[in-house]
Amino acid sequence: MSLYSINTPIIRPGDNIAKVMINALEKEKLHLKDGDIIVIAESVVATSQGRLEKLDQVNPSEGAIRLAKEYDLDPKIAEIVLREANEVCGGVKGVLLTQKDGLFVANAGVDSSNAPKDYVVLLPKEPQKTADGIKKQVEKKTGKKIGIIIGDSRVIPLKRGVIGVALATAGIEPVEDCRGMVDLFGRKLQVTFRAIADDVVSAAQILMGEADEQSPMVLIRGAPIKFTEEPQQEMQLSPEECMYMNVFQLRHTN
Amino acid sequence: MSLYSINTPIIRPGDNIAKVMINALEKEKLHLKDGDIIVIAESVVATSQGRLEKLDQVNPSEGAIRLAKEYDLDPKIAEIVLREANEVCGGVKGVLLTQKDGLFVANAGVDSSNAPKDYVVLLPKEPQKTADGIKKQVEKKTGKKIGIIIGDSRVIPLKRGVIGVALATAGIEPVEDCRGMVDLFGRKLQVTFRAIADDVVSAAQILMGEADEQSPMVLIRGAPIKFTEEPQQEMQLSPEECMYMNVFQLRHTN
Repeated sequence: MSLYSINTPIIRPGDNIAKVMINALEKEKLHLKDGDIIVIAESVVATSQGRLEKLDQVNPSEGAIRLAKEYDLDPKIAEIVLREANEVCGGVKGVLLTQKDGLFVANAGVDSSNAPKDYVVLLPKEPQKTADGIKKQVEKKTGKKIGIIIGDSRVIPLKRGVIGVALATAGIEPVEDCRGMVDLFGRKLQVTFRAIADDVVSAAQILMGEADEQSPMVLIRGAPIKFTEEPQQEMQLSPEECMYMNVFQLRHTN
Repeated sequence: MSLYSINTPIIRPGDNIAKVMINALEKEKLHLKDGDIIVIAESVVATSQGRLEKLDQVNPSEGAIRLAKEYDLDPKIAEIVLREANEVCGGVKGVLLTQKDGLFVANAGVDSSNAPKDYVVLLPKEPQKTADGIKKQVEKKTGKKIGIIIGDSRVIPLKRGVIGVALATAGIEPVEDCRGMVDLFGRKLQVTFRAIADDVVSAAQILMGEADEQSPMVLIRGAPIKFTEEPQQEMQLSPEECMYMNVFQLRHTN
């Protein structure tokens, strides 16, 4: 399995990500093959969609000011987080843990890194539709069957640092169903699902960096992943199915 | 960056993992280079250490029988989980969420997959010392400076399926400290740490599989990771630093 980082120009609102990708691949002399997967950082997808907020145009509400004081945040950022989040669950110094679209996300994805000066970048809108659209465009242009993953970052309880996770996938089965598979000794596996799309984003993030590397896309070649137009598995768990959610409850923060 | 899966014979108690690795690399015609990293599945490390339990020799306690009934488990497995875990936090059908050595682990790492018939495999003992020892032996034998990671699996709240995480690392900085780095626009990064060793294990797990693939080791070449004999960062967070732990509390399960 091989991974190649793809350098792009700085992405601007209105840019067509599929076109940017094809141009960047050409510049890198990378010729797409059937079965290639491209991971795209969520921040460039969001920027291309104009999902940016200019900080000096934000008027923090009283709730945002209170949150900002409690968790040591810019009140303008806290205001945008309140707007973006489905629920603010609490936080630690400098960051809020929120729920958004059924997942736990730091600061509801509001990120001041790699956004233009005085702006923050939000999470992409309609990530699934966007991934499908990029795949379609790139396949039409190149004639190759590929997979597209929009990648994001998450943290694991009690672990330091962010890892890669998939926000949306197109063309691949994001979760490998291991039920019915057998181990070396012919016994049924205990692990029932593998979050293979998340693993792929984590792999890509090794090459992406978070700083000024300007490689918001990574090409993965030779990954033993099932290609499909109709994925069978959801990446998301309901709280009832989730081991953590069955064990923990929210503290009363207010 | 390139990844190569390394097939090995079935590992038995008493096997020397460093020797197994060197033999397997030779068979695959992979010649180690300075800067290579090898991820080893925790199950083969544990097996080589004899960290196996024979199920028919286990006598479940009353507590284990009660747990097994509540969460639909084999009482013998529940008994071993109780012995291995620092704390059983609760669970869902078929699996207990436990704390072990400061981390959240499903079933305290007790796994019936890929253990010999009628046995379960536990987590390795002294993973840090073991990783150091394997690195030292392989470097002595090959003369190359390498990194070793013992890999394991974890789940993220509200996400389906397991991803790769690092249990111990030797020779590399497991967590990249991004404080002070700047983004594309010269602004300080919001992400402060990257769990790069976890990302590497996730990448390796794409090639490892969980079933009968028999590739419990993966070689990673060309990863832009800092090599060091004295890592500056811990992979573990204290509950006070953890976003989740500041937001959630344990339900009363008893």
